[in-house]
Amino acid sequence: MLRIGIAGCGGRMGRMLVRHTLDTPGVVLAAGSERSGGDLVGADVASVVGAEPVGAAITDDPAALVAGCDAVIDFTTPAATVAHADLAAARGTILVVGTTGLGASDLTRLSEAASGARIVRAPNMSVGVNLLMALTRKVAATLGEDYDIEILEHHHRHKVDAPSGTALGLGEAAAAGRGVDLDAAADRVRDGHTGAREDGRIGFAVLRGGDVVGDHTVMFAGPGERIELTHKASDRAIYARGALRAALWAAERPNGLYGMADVLGLG
Amino acid sequence: MLRIGIAGCGGRMGRMLVRHTLDTPGVVLAAGSERSGGDLVGADVASVVGAEPVGAAITDDPAALVAGCDAVIDFTTPAATVAHADLAAARGTILVVGTTGLGASDLTRLSEAASGARIVRAPNMSVGVNLLMALTRKVAATLGEDYDIEILEHHHRHKVDAPSGTALGLGEAAAAGRGVDLDAAADRVRDGHTGAREDGRIGFAVLRGGDVVGDHTVMFAGPGERIELTHKASDRAIYARGALRAALWAAERPNGLYGMADVLGLG
Amino acid sequence: MLRIGIAGCGGRMGRMLVRHTLDTPGVVLAAGSERSGGDLVGADVASVVGAEPVGAAITDDPAALVAGCDAVIDFTTPAATVAHADLAAARGTILVVGTTGLGASDLTRLSEAASGARIVRAPNMSVGVNLLMALTRKVAATLGEDYDIEILEHHHRHKVDAPSGTALGLGEAAAAGRGVDLDAAADRVRDGHTGAREDGRIGFAVLRGGDVVGDHTVMFAGPGERIELTHKASDRAIYARGALRAALWAAERPNGLYGMADVLGLG
Amino acid sequence: MLRIGIAGCGGRMGRMLVRHTLDTPGVVLAAGSERSGGDLVGADVASVVGAEPVGAAITDDPAALVAGCDAVIDFTTPAATVAHADLAAARGTILVVGTTGLGASDLTRLSEAASGARIVRAPNMSVGVNLLMALTRKVAATLGEDYDIEILEHHHRHKVDAPSGTALGLGEAAAAGRGVDLDAAADRVRDGHTGAREDGRIGFAVLRGGDVVGDHTVMFAGPGERIELTHKASDRAIYARGALRAALWAAERPNGLYGMADVLGLG
Repeated sequence: MLRIGIAGCGGRMGRMLVRHTLDTPGVVLAAGSERSGGDLVGADVASVVGAEPVGAAITDDPAALVAGCDAVIDFTTPAATVAHADLAAARGTILVVGTTGLGASDLTRLSEAASGARIVRAPNMSVGVNLLMALTRKVAATLGEDYDIEILEHHHRHKVDAPSGTALGLGEAAAAGRGVDLDAAADRVRDGHTGAREDGRIGFAVLRGGDVVGDHTVMFAGPGERIELTHKASDRAIYARGALRAALWAAERPNGLYGMADVLGLG
Repeated sequence: MLRIGIAGCGGRMGRMLVRHTLDTPGVVLAAGSERSGGDLVGADVASVVGAEPVGAAITDDPAALVAGCDAVIDFTTPAATVAHADLAAARGTILVVGTTGLGASDLTRLSEAASGARIVRAPNMSVGVNLLMALTRKVAATLGEDYDIEILEHHHRHKVDAPSGTALGLGEAAAAGRGVDLDAAADRVRDGHTGAREDGRIGFAVLRGGDVVGDHTVMFAGPGERIELTHKASDRAIYARGALRAALWAAERPNGLYGMADVLGLG
Repeated sequence: MLRIGIAGCGGRMGRMLVRHTLDTPGVVLAAGSERSGGDLVGADVASVVGAEPVGAAITDDPAALVAGCDAVIDFTTPAATVAHADLAAARGTILVVGTTGLGASDLTRLSEAASGARIVRAPNMSVGVNLLMALTRKVAATLGEDYDIEILEHHHRHKVDAPSGTALGLGEAAAAGRGVDLDAAADRVRDGHTGAREDGRIGFAVLRGGDVVGDHTVMFAGPGERIELTHKASDRAIYARGALRAALWAAERPNGLYGMADVLGLG
Repeated sequence: MLRIGIAGCGGRMGRMLVRHTLDTPGVVLAAGSERSGGDLVGADVASVVGAEPVGAAITDDPAALVAGCDAVIDFTTPAATVAHADLAAARGTILVVGTTGLGASDLTRLSEAASGARIVRAPNMSVGVNLLMALTRKVAATLGEDYDIEILEHHHRHKVDAPSGTALGLGEAAAAGRGVDLDAAADRVRDGHTGAREDGRIGFAVLRGGDVVGDHTVMFAGPGERIELTHKASDRAIYARGALRAALWAAERPNGLYGMADVLGLG
């Protein structure tokens, strides 16, 4: 049984991770952390979802979190994540990182820490989205420029940025497949007299409305045919499920920095 | 049998109209016109599609066109169209107008001419698109502002403007259903930090690629459910078919200016 | 404020109705019932969702339920529903019926009771699905037989019947629009050598998989164009929301038996 | 320049192959055949599409067809195809086979002939469909049985069999990815009381209507997410284009029997 620790276990994503850790075969909930001074510090980790106690108190000491488990799952902040990475490297603990907003220097530190730990990091931990990214890269590499690439995403009315980070990630996968740079190839806005579509562009379109968790489609529109690759999320639990899959996968691997494509065997 | 005359019968749309007139029960190809000096003037109208002669020579005289048939179908230019309207009013000939780019003064002249003629005018003559417009207006009037309206369109790589005229027409139908002004309500671009979607907006998203004739979807995304109304065109012949349906419908009506919603009984 | 009573308030749908009654402006939770001998009898109605007490105890007496409110919402069994209808007629209480499986004799009793009460009944209470039914009937009546009608539905892996009741309801709406009988027109299975599609048929296709709440599409596939009308449910709460809308609507109406098309002004 | 010969050049698919051979860089139209006694025998091959003569007469002798070009493209009948394969093996001519209905003994003869010739054979020559098949196999192998596989296809009203051969091919690709047998796993019909979906099934759903050239979607519906892989054909020319791509690819390869997955580098 792989002993799991959840960083930030009292937050929205933390509680979802606790719930899925309790429900997933092959893993056991062993530790949890919260910020210093938080109300939940000292309570049993399982209490954040109202479940039976597991005999592990929530700590506010990152070192205690890392020492108390085989694998830390971390959807917190860049500052907390890099601290966890250093601690994980010192002890050989697995670290699964779903934290967003990591900068170049953060990524460098993760990369350095990976000489002493197995670290899996992905901006989106869902199995389906990562599979879609791998497929997008593959199809973009297979089809020529006479297949126009368009990326469509639809999210709920509360989302504040556009296109979604996942849509941009899909764009990067498409650009990588074609061997081009996304920044140079992206058509992010079309309004008014645009002229005909230029060869080699990667277009984005954005829908906002309702309570849609997140739909993404990558289209390859060529002469006489279209291929569309679509992912539809209906439950945010897919991110927790992917993180646990990553932790279990990493347990059988040597130290190093991995992505979800590695976990899914899509490398 | 309703005798049909095709304005600009030698152009791309004109030839398509000739072909469908020859194939449609209840109508007969009776006249056609081209610009003065055109190569086709004097040839048989049916010759523009390589069909058996129908015994009517292509004329360059608008008055002769209007005099030679019961109904003129006109997908030409604003200047030609208003001239045809005046002639139609003088003789009581039916006029079906698919011409785009008509200005306010052109529309006034059509309206005046309609006191002496039956005129049907629509920017998009397809039965399906006009049905979609009527449905959009109805649904927008039925559902409240907790249903976010989004309009998505996909056209081929050669299209030079965005959003499509039909998408904007659908937006106007939605705005009319809600009793708001489209210009004030439209979200035509989303890029970067947009903030959350505001209540009451009507969003547009644009895809370009491949040889897609024209797909349009109007979404109403509310709490717990979405309604989507979609039209997919696979053949430009739908515009010719709609025009002939309009001509046959008008034959049974009093003088006046009509739209496709009238023709389809969607008023 | 309209005082709402929930029949079967301790069941899955009952609890959802309680929750939405507490959250909806213009209504107040006033009563609830459970079967005789149930554990919840005597508890406060709001307790079924863990909310603050509203001062109304759950009863096992249908007469007390009907007497204790202005409008009963009933997603229970046919036997209970017809009993509620008789009681509602005697007192003039509004009755909103989402019960499924009602037979012809049950419907007759509802109809009779409606001389003394306002009764709204619909097999599917969601605003969106009922709107889709009205649109389907309208489009089927507008378009001719050269537009082939196909109905596609997708539900979760646990659903035990096919096509869904809602899909069959959409088929009935399409058949009514065309003035034909669904039983005679339905193509429910296609497998092996089927021969070409016959004119005037209404086809069904069924997808099962995942945790899809319920997607329905009605297609009208004609020459050169397709119209698709789609409903996607993401949350079963839409049925509760529709029931409360029906109750508020009925409060302003005379006695009679109504459907959701009346509530939505789609008659 | 690769010299192309078209078997059955006067038929519907043959003429499409002639047209695309004339339009494709890197190839030249060098030969064509028709059945003995056909009206077109002796005419210039290019005449079947009304193009300028290329100086090659249509032959009714299969040996002359094979001798007159570097690569034969063959969308004819099983009997003609196996005869072409033997002739191609004797001369080392490339053979691209799009013929459908080949039996086991036909495939054995193709396989034997491939010791002396480069033969590419695929039931559907479109780049997109073959890419979809490769993706389907890959995704089915990556995702577990908690992702339900469903295959949906939509074809025009004239199609006489169901599910389409391509849908069944996609089902075989999914079954191969999972290591199961399609015949044992397929749910081809769902009607009435079906019970819950069983784990590991591969479902099919069929739409017929309008003039849809061919749409196919493979869905993987799992907990909290769906992946959908879609191909939409808008022009039958994609089959001709794929055949020419196969011929050009084979020109650089050793003898052997290949599929479109090899041509596209998807092996």
